[in-house]
Amino acid sequence: MEHGKKILMIVMDGLGDRAVKSLDYRTPLQCARKPNLDWFASNGTSGIMDVIAPGIRPGSDTSHLALLGYDPYKVYTGRGPFEAAGVGLVGKAGDVAFRCNFATVDSRFNVLDRRAGRIKEPDTTELAKALDGMNIGDIKVVVREATEHRAVLMLQGRDLSPRVSDADPHALTTVQTSRPLGPDAARTSEAVNEFVRRSYEVLNDHPVNERRASEGLLPANILLPRGAGVFPDIQPFPERYEMSASGVAGVSLIRGICRVCGLEVIEPPGCTGGMDTDMEAKTCAALKELDRKDFVLMNVKASDVTSHDGDPSRKIETIERLDGMARIIRKDMPEGTVVALMADHCTPVELGDHSGDPVPLTIYTENSIKDGTMSYDEVSCARGALGRIRGMDLMPILLDKADRAEKFGA
Amino acid sequence: MEHGKKILMIVMDGLGDRAVKSLDYRTPLQCARKPNLDWFASNGTSGIMDVIAPGIRPGSDTSHLALLGYDPYKVYTGRGPFEAAGVGLVGKAGDVAFRCNFATVDSRFNVLDRRAGRIKEPDTTELAKALDGMNIGDIKVVVREATEHRAVLMLQGRDLSPRVSDADPHALTTVQTSRPLGPDAARTSEAVNEFVRRSYEVLNDHPVNERRASEGLLPANILLPRGAGVFPDIQPFPERYEMSASGVAGVSLIRGICRVCGLEVIEPPGCTGGMDTDMEAKTCAALKELDRKDFVLMNVKASDVTSHDGDPSRKIETIERLDGMARIIRKDMPEGTVVALMADHCTPVELGDHSGDPVPLTIYTENSIKDGTMSYDEVSCARGALGRIRGMDLMPILLDKADRAEKFGA
Repeated sequence: MEHGKKILMIVMDGLGDRAVKSLDYRTPLQCARKPNLDWFASNGTSGIMDVIAPGIRPGSDTSHLALLGYDPYKVYTGRGPFEAAGVGLVGKAGDVAFRCNFATVDSRFNVLDRRAGRIKEPDTTELAKALDGMNIGDIKVVVREATEHRAVLMLQGRDLSPRVSDADPHALTTVQTSRPLGPDAARTSEAVNEFVRRSYEVLNDHPVNERRASEGLLPANILLPRGAGVFPDIQPFPERYEMSASGVAGVSLIRGICRVCGLEVIEPPGCTGGMDTDMEAKTCAALKELDRKDFVLMNVKASDVTSHDGDPSRKIETIERLDGMARIIRKDMPEGTVVALMADHCTPVELGDHSGDPVPLTIYTENSIKDGTMSYDEVSCARGALGRIRGMDLMPILLDKADRAEKFGA
Repeated sequence: MEHGKKILMIVMDGLGDRAVKSLDYRTPLQCARKPNLDWFASNGTSGIMDVIAPGIRPGSDTSHLALLGYDPYKVYTGRGPFEAAGVGLVGKAGDVAFRCNFATVDSRFNVLDRRAGRIKEPDTTELAKALDGMNIGDIKVVVREATEHRAVLMLQGRDLSPRVSDADPHALTTVQTSRPLGPDAARTSEAVNEFVRRSYEVLNDHPVNERRASEGLLPANILLPRGAGVFPDIQPFPERYEMSASGVAGVSLIRGICRVCGLEVIEPPGCTGGMDTDMEAKTCAALKELDRKDFVLMNVKASDVTSHDGDPSRKIETIERLDGMARIIRKDMPEGTVVALMADHCTPVELGDHSGDPVPLTIYTENSIKDGTMSYDEVSCARGALGRIRGMDLMPILLDKADRAEKFGA
């Protein structure tokens, strides 16, 4: 099978839900008008999927790793490296990365503001540059600004460990001393503590902060790392599956996951990862990408945003916008494409956070067995012919549907 | 539970399929008239089964190992030993076996014909005898003729490895030097290369080839090994499950799997493994075997043959013949038998090769829960009460249905 079919993986973030009292105990998907999503269910094969494992509440990071076929229990040690990759900083296997906040502290390292007066670019850009390139012993320090008051820190060197506690106190109290949480982690936690001390030295008198003080703004005089994780040693997706691959995502974290896994990241204009995202432009960009690649992952964040907000009627509206996306895919997808519709996790509106419920899944391609599922929702899909699978099973199934799988045996 | 029920495992090779365009997007099973297969579905409990794992495309060898409860990832290193056992040559654990072709080469070992002018018995019998019993250092060589131009080679000795490349070039080019593909495999690859050289010395001037030359036929002057595998160290099926067991199969490879697993192989006359097989005679032989054994596996190859041919209407005809088999089983099975109907893998007619789709499964015994499944097909079974299971789960389930399972705990 030299030329398999193309694969389009559509991840509708946080889409699945529970029975909502104000919706007469139906789910938002059961209430929304969504003829195009339902067309895929009617012409494809459906099921439900435990993205990590039954009852496990996935993050958007661990879920996307599983959906791409990488075992999050093996490759995920913390969010740091994926946030770093989200802003374009992709380390080597073994490099340890952290999410950071620019914060304001007094001279005794009491945190006065965890967001340094909601500092943002271009101030953060200049302050990150002042810290970037520092050396701590033989450990090299890389710092990049991220969105708003955030930054990422990467430590490069031998024998680093992600098993260290946060310097960020997550509250208005004293900066924490990073502690080793596992064997051989002392070298890393000491580097973190040294970095935090020196960030204060470098930043406290920095011209940007002097200017901010003169403007009555809080200084960003320290960088507080949290969420340590190690860049995993993984076989890049294109090599592992023998497919060229792109990721289309508005959210930085998802872009980071894609980059670490070796997907090319496409950033179409207007694709924000928020409610104001131009879903049509994004869908067209994903389809255009599918012309030149074998595999495209597209993440749409809006459904998760409205779910966290907790308003079922806004979630229903978002689903109806997602149906517009499905209409474009249905109309314009290349012939013979395998389309997989899913969520990365449920985000029940009444919970306002991720849950461990299985997500609805539909896999469509022309020769999918038609299983009588008429609606793309949590209940209808659960009766479909795919049964209940796990996130880690998805890639093997899609490769098989796309006639790209190797035979095991004769 | 001293006396459990008897178990009849019916494997309809390559039976499952996908939605076929020319069948209005139904599967051949959905189109065939098969009242007896449907009777089992209506009176049994159905589900779908990933014979290896979701999306994994099984060979007929790896699939049958899994169906018998042996993890193919542990016991399968290559097809050689199962082909050898197929022609009656069952080695000890650690012996390494190969499939071989009698071929024609020139004096510089360029392959002129990979099938030596389609040589067959009795010529191959005599040539195999000439090679059998050779010693390469302290390694003992066993050679047996197989069907048509084929043979099997077994190496017996200490520290042999199946991780060696093929000497067979699989094309009309020079005979390949077998290379070690893993640590400690050099001893084996050197033995293979020595065997190939000596096979030429023994065969080139053999009287059979002199006679063939005088008749204008190509000489079979070399034996080319491929598909190395090691005889696994497994607990024989009858011992493992405390059941006497037989396998009824027309195909040599499946007979080999049964023999390696310790099943007695029954070869009823007229049971060819092809389209011309006498399905009724085979079914009667399997039922007769069930009179004296606890467990009988019956493999019917015809459904796979028509699937590889790619003609949906011929596959439908074959299914209707399989229904005749089901009629006999329904009528004549011993009271209290557990009957399991399944495929070993799907072979979609439009693909013409094995796929990784789950296979339909029905388990019937008098006290099976009746789950409302009315038809034995991919879609109906997927809605059945067995849900989606794996091939390795089948034997424990059948043992339990047969009231033969050990209790775990008190």
